[in-house]
Parts: sequence; C-alpha cells; structure tokens
Amino acid sequence: MTVGQAKWGLALALLAGAAVAGDGAGERAVAAVDPFIGTGGEGHTYPGATVPHGMIQLSPDTQIKSRKEGYGWAAGYRHDDRTIVGFSHTHFSGTGHSDLGDVLVMPIANEVKYERGDVDRPGSGYTSRFRHEDEKAEPGYYAVTLDDYGVRAELTASARVGMHRYAFPQGQPAHVLVDLRTSMYDYPGKVLWSRLRLRADGTVTGYRQTRGWAPGRQLYFAMRFSRPLAGHAFHDTEADVAYRGFPPPAEKDPAARAQIEGRQLVGSFDFGDGGREPLLVKVSISPVSEDNAIANLDAEAPGWDFDGMRATARTQWAQALAAVDVDAPAPLRTSFYTALYHSMLGPTLFMDSDGRYRGPDNAVHQAKGWTHYSTFSLWDTYRALHPLMTLLQPPQRSSDMVNSLLAARRESPYGILPVWSFHGLETWCMIGYHGVPVIADAYMKGIGGFDADEALEAMVASADYGPYDGIAQYRELGWVPIDEEGEAASKTLEYAYDDWSIARMAAAMGREDVAAEFAMRAGNWKNAFDPATGFMRARKRDGGFREPFDPDASGYGSDYTEGNAWQYSWYVPQDVAGLAAAHGGADKLLQRLDDVFDAKVDPAVFEHMEDITGLIGWYAHGNEPSHHVAYLYAYAGQPWRTQARLKRIMDTQYAPRPDGLAGNDDLGQMSAWYVFTALGFYPVTPGSNEYVIGRPFLPRATLNLPNGERFTIVADGLDDAHPYIGGATLNGKPLERAFLRHEEIMAGGELRFTMQAEPSREWGTDPRMRPYSQSTH
Amino acid sequence: MTVGQAKWGLALALLAGAAVAGDGAGERAVAAVDPFIGTGGEGHTYPGATVPHGMIQLSPDTQIKSRKEGYGWAAGYRHDDRTIVGFSHTHFSGTGHSDLGDVLVMPIANEVKYERGDVDRPGSGYTSRFRHEDEKAEPGYYAVTLDDYGVRAELTASARVGMHRYAFPQGQPAHVLVDLRTSMYDYPGKVLWSRLRLRADGTVTGYRQTRGWAPGRQLYFAMRFSRPLAGHAFHDTEADVAYRGFPPPAEKDPAARAQIEGRQLVGSFDFGDGGREPLLVKVSISPVSEDNAIANLDAEAPGWDFDGMRATARTQWAQALAAVDVDAPAPLRTSFYTALYHSMLGPTLFMDSDGRYRGPDNAVHQAKGWTHYSTFSLWDTYRALHPLMTLLQPPQRSSDMVNSLLAARRESPYGILPVWSFHGLETWCMIGYHGVPVIADAYMKGIGGFDADEALEAMVASADYGPYDGIAQYRELGWVPIDEEGEAASKTLEYAYDDWSIARMAAAMGREDVAAEFAMRAGNWKNAFDPATGFMRARKRDGGFREPFDPDASGYGSDYTEGNAWQYSWYVPQDVAGLAAAHGGADKLLQRLDDVFDAKVDPAVFEHMEDITGLIGWYAHGNEPSHHVAYLYAYAGQPWRTQARLKRIMDTQYAPRPDGLAGNDDLGQMSAWYVFTALGFYPVTPGSNEYVIGRPFLPRATLNLPNGERFTIVADGLDDAHPYIGGATLNGKPLERAFLRHEEIMAGGELRFTMQAEPSREWGTDPRMRPYSQSTH
Repeated sequence: MTVGQAKWGLALALLAGAAVAGDGAGERAVAAVDPFIGTGGEGHTYPGATVPHGMIQLSPDTQIKSRKEGYGWAAGYRHDDRTIVGFSHTHFSGTGHSDLGDVLVMPIANEVKYERGDVDRPGSGYTSRFRHEDEKAEPGYYAVTLDDYGVRAELTASARVGMHRYAFPQGQPAHVLVDLRTSMYDYPGKVLWSRLRLRADGTVTGYRQTRGWAPGRQLYFAMRFSRPLAGHAFHDTEADVAYRGFPPPAEKDPAARAQIEGRQLVGSFDFGDGGREPLLVKVSISPVSEDNAIANLDAEAPGWDFDGMRATARTQWAQALAAVDVDAPAPLRTSFYTALYHSMLGPTLFMDSDGRYRGPDNAVHQAKGWTHYSTFSLWDTYRALHPLMTLLQPPQRSSDMVNSLLAARRESPYGILPVWSFHGLETWCMIGYHGVPVIADAYMKGIGGFDADEALEAMVASADYGPYDGIAQYRELGWVPIDEEGEAASKTLEYAYDDWSIARMAAAMGREDVAAEFAMRAGNWKNAFDPATGFMRARKRDGGFREPFDPDASGYGSDYTEGNAWQYSWYVPQDVAGLAAAHGGADKLLQRLDDVFDAKVDPAVFEHMEDITGLIGWYAHGNEPSHHVAYLYAYAGQPWRTQARLKRIMDTQYAPRPDGLAGNDDLGQMSAWYVFTALGFYPVTPGSNEYVIGRPFLPRATLNLPNGERFTIVADGLDDAHPYIGGATLNGKPLERAFLRHEEIMAGGELRFTMQAEPSREWGTDPRMRPYSQSTH
Repeated sequence: MTVGQAKWGLALALLAGAAVAGDGAGERAVAAVDPFIGTGGEGHTYPGATVPHGMIQLSPDTQIKSRKEGYGWAAGYRHDDRTIVGFSHTHFSGTGHSDLGDVLVMPIANEVKYERGDVDRPGSGYTSRFRHEDEKAEPGYYAVTLDDYGVRAELTASARVGMHRYAFPQGQPAHVLVDLRTSMYDYPGKVLWSRLRLRADGTVTGYRQTRGWAPGRQLYFAMRFSRPLAGHAFHDTEADVAYRGFPPPAEKDPAARAQIEGRQLVGSFDFGDGGREPLLVKVSISPVSEDNAIANLDAEAPGWDFDGMRATARTQWAQALAAVDVDAPAPLRTSFYTALYHSMLGPTLFMDSDGRYRGPDNAVHQAKGWTHYSTFSLWDTYRALHPLMTLLQPPQRSSDMVNSLLAARRESPYGILPVWSFHGLETWCMIGYHGVPVIADAYMKGIGGFDADEALEAMVASADYGPYDGIAQYRELGWVPIDEEGEAASKTLEYAYDDWSIARMAAAMGREDVAAEFAMRAGNWKNAFDPATGFMRARKRDGGFREPFDPDASGYGSDYTEGNAWQYSWYVPQDVAGLAAAHGGADKLLQRLDDVFDAKVDPAVFEHMEDITGLIGWYAHGNEPSHHVAYLYAYAGQPWRTQARLKRIMDTQYAPRPDGLAGNDDLGQMSAWYVFTALGFYPVTPGSNEYVIGRPFLPRATLNLPNGERFTIVADGLDDAHPYIGGATLNGKPLERAFLRHEEIMAGGELRFTMQAEPSREWGTDPRMRPYSQSTH
C-alpha cells in the first residue's frame, strides 16, 4: 500500500465512522444532491463525476460559438447549451477564470470527424446534440445520450481515474476520439506541446503542456479500453509550422503511428461494430509522468467494474455528506446537500499513487506521510470553505491542506505560500496572503499534523515578501499606496486581517515578538478609513487619499478588488468594534449597513465587472467581499437585522435549479456560506474560533462531528412566518450571546432556537457577550 | 560514489593504463591537436572545451546574418566569422543539420544589451568582435578576447559541467547575460517553453523545451557565479502573446523577479566593478530536472578551481589520445591527433550523476550498472567510428554504447533501435537500421557487458519494423519499391548489409534460424543491381526499374540518399566478390571503379545537395556512401590501386587548417576514416572482424590497446616518393594478404610495411587470401 492509499484509507475510515453515526443520513444526503445546481447562470459548476476532493473531475463540456469565450464556460458545461463536445477529465468548480478541460474524450458512431464543427450547424463536426431529459447526474455519476450518435454515455470516477461506459448502436462502427487541442478557453499558442502514444499493450498515454491560467502546466494521462483496438489514427492539425523535423515512420499512414508529438493533436480509436457490449474507457491523470499515470490506473482501476466504481464513489459521497443530517423539506434538503457537496470538491487531490506531485517550481516532489492537495482559491475559500472543513471533515483533511500549503511554500521560487494555485502552480490571481488565515484557523482549532514553527515562519515570510502586490510599501507606510500599486484599498484591508491571524497564532504559540509586530499591523485597516466620507479608501504615498473619489466606481486595477467602496468598506473582521468606533459608534455603523443593503442600484453599473453579481442594494452576494457583511448587524448589537438580511439573501441568491447560484461558486465558498448560514452560524473571523449566530434555516440539523460527537441544531417553530430567533438554549441552558465557540460545537450537544414571527430586540444583544472581534482589539 | 562516477572511474583507470603504456604519448598527442580544424569549410566542428564523449560541449557561437541559416553554423562557430554571440554548452561535432546551442552565456562590460544586434553594425547588440590571434584552443580548453568589452574569456569543462573564467576590465560594471532564446538554427516557435530562476542561495537554474531537430527536447541547467550577485534582471521579449496569465510579483521590476517563464527569455546578472578578480561561472546541464542539474554541479565542480578542471580535462584527453603513439612530421601528427580527438567526441554522455536520463519516449529512466550515451549519428558512424572505438577504447565504452542502444529500444514508442538520436530523442534522420551493425560488430569482437539475446531480438525487431521506410515492402518483395518509398535503391542496399550483420551475430550465437533468414536477406542487394547499366537502381513494385534513369542525377527523396548511382552502386560491403561477379568479374568492377574516380564532374551538379562534397570524379569523400569505395580495388585484386586512390584522398580531402575537412565530420566518421586510413587499414565490413589493408601514411604508429597489448605499424622507407607497399610482415613473418584480422591486432605485435616508389602488382593479390566479404557469400 502506498503512502497515498494509506492516507485515503485512513480518511475513509474516519468518514465511515461518521456515516455509521449518521444512520443512513449519507445515502439520503446523496439522493438529495442535484449536481446541475450552478451549471446555469453565474455558478460555473460542472455536473460530472468526481469523488470528494478527487483529482479527476470527469464531466461533459458543451459547445460554444468560440472557445475564446472563456468566462461563462469556466467549468466546461453551460446548462443552456444543446451540444456536447466531449467529456474531459479536469474541471474547476465555480471559478471566474478558465483552464483545465484536459484529455477530452468523445464517443463517435459511424464516420470519424476530427473537428468540432460549427455550433450553428449540427452534424458539421464531431460534437453531438443532447437533451436534458436524457441526462442524469448524481454524486460520482453522470449520464447522457448523444443524439447524433445514438450513444448512451455514462461517467464515473475514483480519486485519480475516470471511467466511461459507452453503449453504441448496433451495425455501426464505434470510435473514441481523444482531442488534446481543446481546453475551457482556447487561444493560439495555448498548447505548448503534447504527445499521444499507443503502447504495444493497447494502453494509450500522453501529455500536454499548456500556457493557460497556470503557465507551463504539464498533465500526463493513461487510457485503456475494454475492447481490443481495431485501428487508430493520430493527427497533428497545426498548420504553418516553421520546422517539423523529420517525419516519423508511417507519416503517410496515421493508422500506423505509435506516437505523435506536436501542438494540435487529435487521435481516434476504432472498435469495429458498436453493438456488442458497452465499451468501457478508463483514464487516469498524473502531474509527474505517463508511467505514473499508468501506475495510478493500475492502483485504482485494475479491472472493468464500472458499476463497482460508481458504487464506491457513491459510498464515499454518502460518508462525506453524512457529516450533517438534515431534517427539512425536499427543496431545502436539495439546496443544502448540494451546497455541502460543492463544498467538498476543492481543493483537489494532486498527488500520484506513489506520493509524487508537481510543485510551484514545476518540479516533481514527493509527499511523505501526508496527502498533497492543490487548487487553492484562497481569496475565496479562507472565508468559510476552510473553516467548514475544519468543522465537518476529519482533521487529517485540514492538516493535509496545511501541509500542502507549507510544501508549496518550500518549493516556491518566491519562498511564499500560495496565492491562487492549481495543479501545483501559482497563478498570482486575486490578492492577499490568505494561506495565512487558513493555517492560523486550523492551528487555533487544534488541528495538528503539521510543523507549527515552520508554518509561522512561512506565514511571516509571506506577509513580509516585499515584491508582491505592494507589501514592501505596506510594511514601510502601513498602507499600500495607490500611486504605486493598484487595488490598494482592498490590499491594505485584507493584509491587515491576515496579519491579525498571524498575531493570533503567534500569541498562542508563545511567540510574543511575532505576535506584537503583527498585532500592530492588524490595525493598518485604520489607514484606509476616511472619517470624512465613512468609506475605506485608497491612500497615496503622501498620505492623502486618491481623488477624485466615487464610492460607486469599480474596475479591475481601481482602488478596490472586484468591488467598490460600498462593498469593501466593512472589511475589518478582526476588529468590528473598532470599525464601529471609527464610524462614531455602533449606531452609525448600522446606518451605514442599511445604506449598503437598501440602496437602489442599477445592476448595469457592474456590467464591466463580470464577477460582481447577486446584488441587494450595493451588497453583492455573488462575490466574496460581501460575504460577511449581513452578519455585522449582530456585532453592532442588532442580531435581528442580520436575521432579516440573511432571509433575503437565502431567498434571492440560492435556488435548487441550474441557475440557482447568484455568483461563481468559487471552489465552494458560495456553497460553504450557504451551509453555515443554513445551520445558523458563520465564521466571520477565521482564527477567532468563534462563529457569529445568524439564524437557522433548517428545522433540525445534526452535525456528525469527526471526533465522534454530535451537535444538533433545532429550530422550534421555524417557518416562513417565524423567521426570527426569540431565544436559544445550548445543552438546555439559556444562550444569550449571538455567537458560538468552536469548542462548544466540537463537544457535541444541542443548540435549540425558538423561532418567532417578530424580531427579538433582546436576544443576543447583551454587549457583555460579544464575539472576539467585538470584545478585543 | 554514484553509478555514473564509478563507471567513469573504471573507464579512466583503464585509460590511465594506456597512458602509462604510452610513456608521454598522451601529452604529446594533446599538444598536437588543433581543435580549429574543421571549423571552416564543410567540417562543422566546434573549437570549444569538452572531455572525451562528455555531455558538455562549451564552445563559442559566432554571429551570422540570420540565425535562420542553419546548415553552415551547425556547430555554432564558423572560422570566417568575426563576431562572437556567446558561449553555449551543447554542440554537435560535424553534423549536417542544426540544433543544440543550449544556455548561451555572454560576459558584458558596461551597459547590458539584450539583443544580438546587427552583424553588420558592430556594437549594435550584445555580441563582440574578436580576432583569431587572440584565440587559443586545445583539448578541454578555449580562450578568446572579446574586443568590444575588453574581456578575456576562458572555457573549460568536465563531463557535465562547463566552467567560464572572465577577466573583466577595471572601472566598468561586469555583467553576465544568459540568453535562452537562441540555438544553432532559430525560427519562430522553436522554443516551446523555458524558465529562468534565481534561487535564494544565488544559484540560477532553468530549462527550455524546444521543437528542433529533436522535437520536444527538454534541457535543464544550473549555474553558479564565483562572486556574489549585485543585481539581476529577467525579461520575456516575446511580443503578441495571446494570454500571459496574471503577472508574477515585481512585474514592474525585472530585478526583483525570482523566476520567469515564457518562450523568449533572457536574463542578466550584475557583479559590480569588473576589475577585481576574474569572475568564474560554472554551468551544468541535465536531461531530468533543475535539481539534477544542481546535483551534477555539486558532484563534479564543488569548488572554483578553473585551472584544476582544465588540467583534469587535459589529463583525460592525454589518456584517451595515448591510445595511439605516432611518429610522424608535425603537420601529419596534427592531422592525425585532431582526427583521433574528433573521433572521441561523440556519442556523448547523456546521464546525470545519479544515473538518470531521458529516453526516446521523453520520459525519465534510470541506468543501473552502465553509462548512458546519446547522439548516435548511426548512418555515419557505424562505418568506421564505432569500429575504431572497439579497437582503441576500453571495451566498457563500446558495451555502454550497446547498452544505450538497447535501452533506447526498450524505451522506444516504436520498439526499435535508434536511427539518429540525440539527447535521448529520435530524429528519424537518414536511413537504415544501423544500430544493428554497431551491435553485431561489438559482439563479434567479443565485447561483452550486454545481453546478447536481448540485443539480437532488438536487431531483428528493428529489421522487421514494417512502418519504417519501406521495410514492410522490403520484407515482402526483397527490395524497397521506389513507387512507394523514396530513396529506395539506397535503402535496399543498406538494409541488405544490416541484415548480413544480423546473420553474422545470430550464427555466432548458434541461432541458426535467425541466421538463415537474414543471410537470405543479405542477398537483397542483387535486387537493386541492373546488369544492363551496371548500376544499382531503384526498382518498382512491379519489378521494373524506375525510368527514366540518369546515373548523374541526385536529389533528396530521389532514388538515392544524398548521392547518385555513381556513388551508391558499390555498396555491398558484405559481398564484394558477389558485386564483382554481378559485374562480370573483378576486372569489370575495377573498370567501373575507375569510371567513378576518373570522371570529369562539374561540382555544380551537386549545388542542390549540401552534403555531397569532396569530389574526386564522382567519388565524394565529403559524404559517407563513398567512404569504402577506394578500398574496393584491393578486394578486386589490385591493392596498389587502393593505395594510389588513398594517397589522392588524403592529400586533397584533409589538411591541418580550419577548412581542412572536405565534408561534415559527422560525429567523427570523417575523422575515424582518417585515423584508420593513416594507420594503414580500414573496416569496410564491420561485423567481419577484418580490416582491409590500404597503405600506411605514418612512418610509425603504436596502438596502446585497451587490453594492455601494443600493436606497432612501421612503414619502412615511407615518403612521398615511396607511396606503395612493396611487402609486409606481421610479427616478422611475411604477410601476403591485404587484410588484417581483429584478433591479430588485439594480440599485439608488429606490422611492418616496406614502402616503394612503384606499385607492387604482387603483394596482396593472392586470391586465396582475400577478406571475408571476398571469400564467402
């Protein structure tokens, strides 16, 4: 058993405990998931087959007019499309940027075509029309009928292997196309190099290197078919190559090529008459080599048991989703479990069965004693996704995430933690050093299994790395100067929070020197606050704010990151009391929050900002800077206002239908927000070990905690007419405060709310019992 | 000590024995070598620093009008150029095709420029003028003064490390430029991807992947400087990139970039005032990874001892060149030892210090117990280069070559031996399966250390691989049909010889089944022979020869490979007697040979064939198909005619000056021909264990054989007026036959010729004592 397998075994064993505890909860949860949620509208999710945090995401890609339109097709599939291009093996869940879509496979009956053709002329290429009524999607499984070929296609997956089952029509030759030219977002020169090879034993291997979102990304694969090959052909369709080298054997006969290399490769494999038994295709990927891809295939899928792999995937999902046992009406259960499902897709396993992976130096490394993950959308996921993981998943998962971050930092040419990385490589997307709060949050919750000293050193190194996004100036001035660095207001605010999380962890470790320095830096948000306007603003090196100032204005590279002053001015999660004080008191802050939510805003003002969606006034639930804002009412002493705002958000921004996500799911952050909020609390300040209480949206939910304890949340009297908390008890004793401590949940017990029709202006308002960021700064 | 080091140690120990035996011969030999021979004219050699069969070839590259002119600059340097671009670390010796030129380094004083500039406007770029009087080249060392910078540059090398020593002028800032954009032959899109990284400890690493002669070739490197860096800058000069990804930190400040990736990278490194002490730069390469390149650097060059590395390289060359101790006038010694030097450059080591290398599948493999070589120019080198290696170098070298060929076959996507491979990758250049005779020749000479059964199986697989160059049809018909495959006449002839070598080895192994089949195939040359014209011709599938036929005609893809009927019609080394018989007897063949040498040929007829040079009549010494032809007179009973032709060739085709090689040295084949011919014998039929005697050109030469024996060749009375053999003795006994057996040489002893003014029509003509290919068919 390899390292990786041992780790998975351990994780599964821990999850199995949860499943048992859940008493059938897992199977009910799986049945409630609708993977199509988010595949329309702005969600950017995919409907295909994967296992929790699996390396393979095997999913259909639909055809668009031009693959140069990347944004809307970031997950490869859009629910309003009617044509499938094929099934590729890697997908992001919910990004606002495009890449992946590796190893596109398409079953073809009859004549092989090598081009996709024109989406407006069905049959002009190898794509096929399909109908939603023929689709079926569930965790770990997807099926569709390809109408142009009469092929029933089914997909399932294990961690590193995707398996396809194709039922071809009788009396027609069956083929499988493999297209290495295509991605989610295609443009000239994206594929740097690629290879297709047919080995003597019938195994197909290959690789491609792409300059996409992650430049220079290498992906290797191996593929086997359940039936013997009747023939094959390899083509390089690139025109105008300055020099091709000498032709390999059988240049005149693509069917005899054992291997082809180039930048625009497509291959077809022939299987004679389609109608015998279904053709099975299994595909593994590897970041390391073709040999490692073969080893992954051998390790996870030695045979041809499609139904067995599907059942195993379903069991893994049942075990994972059994972490919460929800008692609620069907649509709510579907929304909840789909959100929980989406929160368990990323980060994704990125390590071969032998423990090797590729790091940010694009070199091969070996994980010893831990499991390597990648796809860290940290600007999004440090907020609620990682905190949810620390709560509901085995601690091993979070410690593996931390170890992956620390490894990436050791391997980084820059010597810092990842910013936004996938498949091991840094993309430099978004802002902040938000690997820092992910580690601090895990440490503060007692999740061990990593070297805390190394971690703190990595956090400090990341926070002190001058060349990155104005940190040198931030360290010098206390703010990022807008005349030297774009999006300076957002950077100053987020750096200050990240710094606070370093101070927290350093203090807990007894490293008072570090704690003192970063506690100072945590106050740098004050340098962005403009008392005159009441907004957080971008300051220049000379200390003045940049003029002219328009709080409504937004734009990439402006004073703010994917937002404007209305959205960013409340980002002081480490010191909400301080924020209120800066405004002149809690009442003033409350007024400002109302100004945000109650503004009349024409959505057209954000037409140039594709990420800013889900508007309620200026509040933009479709993007992360707003995610904590509704909870701030509770900090300011009016939890009933939080409760009202949350109801509005839950009612308008989520729905159990394809276009049911108001914004990009962002590797599960949107969904993690939903899970927390539906349960009734939210981690506004990761690293504080506290959750602010919003209000429950589920009549009853039991957390089957990874430590074996159960924590049940009951909402007595909850219905649409009784949306407010009237009172609460924790383990039978009155709970007057509007927050929970992490250790209270982990200890198990019962949190019981009494819901009522009218807001309670008493419950949760005692200023002596405020959360951390309210009581200390 | 690693595997690779152990092997080198063993080889060196064996060579050391030869050096001792040579009694100062090695040092005298080194002093005689002139690395500039072949750097002008058609030789395509390089003057830079390398060790015998070393992985690093560190040599100056000169500037040409456009790097798109590849052919003449295949080794990077042309003696008639006056501007140096820089010093790169990989070079071919004598190819007719271009690639390599990796990791170009240029010292710069004062202002850094990043472009080469215009060759007609000195100073317009970073290149520098130089003068030949300031150059010095010797085995393992090269030096030049860069006039534009006043920099004295010296180069030396170990197996995997190149070391530079730059003396900069005082009072000016010193810089080193690293240009990853350039190769021997540049065109758009050649660099697929590359990386430059400055590590925290000051080590620079990187890689590039190119689609050159070997498509998809990856080369990694590591570089260290003897002085601390004062600054650096990394640039990507590629314009019009469709998508670059998000900028890394310090995009605005190239001096702060820790890493850069792209397709057109150049970096500069600053060292403050140049005038302190010389700056040393050491560079290692690796086919595997940047980490492996660092390991190679640490293994071979832990310190900064330039003079020590130079001395070690010189000692290695002295030990290698001591294999022959020559007594001859200075110009002849220079020609001889330079030829011997050139015969010990390729194939080149291609394996890291940990035994890992990259194979023809472009994957990483591990050599266990042997040393991996690459750069197999087999169409050229099976003729005389590899036979020379079996004679003069330790058997370990040849067995490592065979093991490298067998490994490449195991790793080949096609399951066959290399055709023309370098840096592990197959290029499919030229024709034949000439790895086969290299292995057969080694086996027949008793060179063990490889698995003969595996070898025979690999040879048969290569000879039977249908998709390659008409082999399927050749097996079906007995000839390659010209209506289905170009250059069919040449292919049929060379396949038949290769087949004969399989039969020889199979018979020696007792594998009579294989021997019988391939002995049959060895007769396939007869299918190319046209009795009507007396030429070897290209036959069609229907059995007829292709018409119209013009024996003077040549062209790429014509009936012949880099030649015409006049040049290819004598290629039956396995059965010269049969060839004579086909012509109607030896006298008829002699007449035909005279027709070749005595024809009046306008060299302009080969203007379209850059490889066909060195004409004497139709005989083209500048290309390999002619190399055995002068020796055929001896087979036909008139050795004095061979002697006369050889004198003409030696007098006109070789000279101890830069343009002294009449054709591409072709990885040492031209030079190996010279070494054999100068000694007095030649391996017309590798695999026969016989050498046909030409005539000696050296008064006295002693072979210090790798088995510890000495074999001395004395030419009594030799001078220009006495060019003919009058008689010969072997160990004091009369030698009447015009051939030697390999075992006679290896046993040691003395071969003594008596030279005379007039041809002897007696000596060597006894038809009972003819070489193998004469007496058996």
